[in-house]
Amino acid sequence: MTESARKEGTRRPPGRRPGPTETREAILTSARELFAEKGYDGASLRAIARGAGVDPALVHHFFGNKEGVFIAAMRFPVDPGELLPKLLGTPRADLGETMVRTFLSVWEVPERRAPIIALLRSAMTNERAAVMMREFVSAALFARAAALHDIPVLRIQAAAGQMIGVMILRYVLEVEPIASSTPDELVELLAPTVQRHLG
Amino acid sequence: MTESARKEGTRRPPGRRPGPTETREAILTSARELFAEKGYDGASLRAIARGAGVDPALVHHFFGNKEGVFIAAMRFPVDPGELLPKLLGTPRADLGETMVRTFLSVWEVPERRAPIIALLRSAMTNERAAVMMREFVSAALFARAAALHDIPVLRIQAAAGQMIGVMILRYVLEVEPIASSTPDELVELLAPTVQRHLG
Repeated sequence: MTESARKEGTRRPPGRRPGPTETREAILTSARELFAEKGYDGASLRAIARGAGVDPALVHHFFGNKEGVFIAAMRFPVDPGELLPKLLGTPRADLGETMVRTFLSVWEVPERRAPIIALLRSAMTNERAAVMMREFVSAALFARAAALHDIPVLRIQAAAGQMIGVMILRYVLEVEPIASSTPDELVELLAPTVQRHLG
Repeated sequence: MTESARKEGTRRPPGRRPGPTETREAILTSARELFAEKGYDGASLRAIARGAGVDPALVHHFFGNKEGVFIAAMRFPVDPGELLPKLLGTPRADLGETMVRTFLSVWEVPERRAPIIALLRSAMTNERAAVMMREFVSAALFARAAALHDIPVLRIQAAAGQMIGVMILRYVLEVEPIASSTPDELVELLAPTVQRHLG
């Protein structure tokens, strides 16, 4: 049982069962601890449920699958399970522009980029956080994106690298002129190189 | 006077003047404090000297100019003043491959990439560190690189973004297959897009 689950337990009158909000929070706390300790691949839904003192069926009920638990626990601002099928509908020739606009739509909003920056910072600080993020992006993003259009994973990573580096220059370091460029200017600048990697 | 300079002062027998190593360290300590507090542009050599309790001529003597002090104080692994003139001798058509190999030669060595990762992490953590790094890379890297071959700064930043993002995927997150690719494979993958930005 997690620390917060135990505290909740002592605060509740004896006999009363935890409500959905308390159960959800207990699962997320357990998940954060286990992902940090075991990595994304190593943390099982069963162990997350055990840590929260709940039945594994409840974890499925609230979050669907491990990816769902991770996205909620880390406040990851994008659900790859929703996003990537949209990309499937994009003609291959438009993937470059779509990828640039998708990155911008997430990073443009401070509350959406903050959790990604926090995860990157953790990965730069300690090896366990790096393992956790590596396993998550590999399983949830790169492998799945590659499967969509039959593109080699290395090329997806080159395209993602182009976007991640520009996002850091634009939103973290805020160097000019790239920090003040309009989305259309960035599409003009970057879509052809992203397209070249993915095309 | 910095904290360490003061400590040095009380440890030394009265009347003995600080040696070159002590003076150098006092200047670097003062520089780290001032760069963090005032940013790169806002920290003057005069104020750094004053913080170390030395004559500004000594700062010039040890480090040449403000860029030299910054590189030493932050343990920045590359001296742009040495590196960029080399790029001037590179034919414009070879800039893509040269840039990819230059990034790899720095990041491949753990002791050389560690201070860059530390600076990036600080910039992700607090605004003052971000200002410091923004001003340094703008003045020492981007403006100068653009002047070399008359390339718009925005295009230099797009090329740098490609490399920074790939360095993070390869050396921080260590995602496969890009983490295990050989330098030649990365040149084949990235040099054309970097060249496209710079060409």
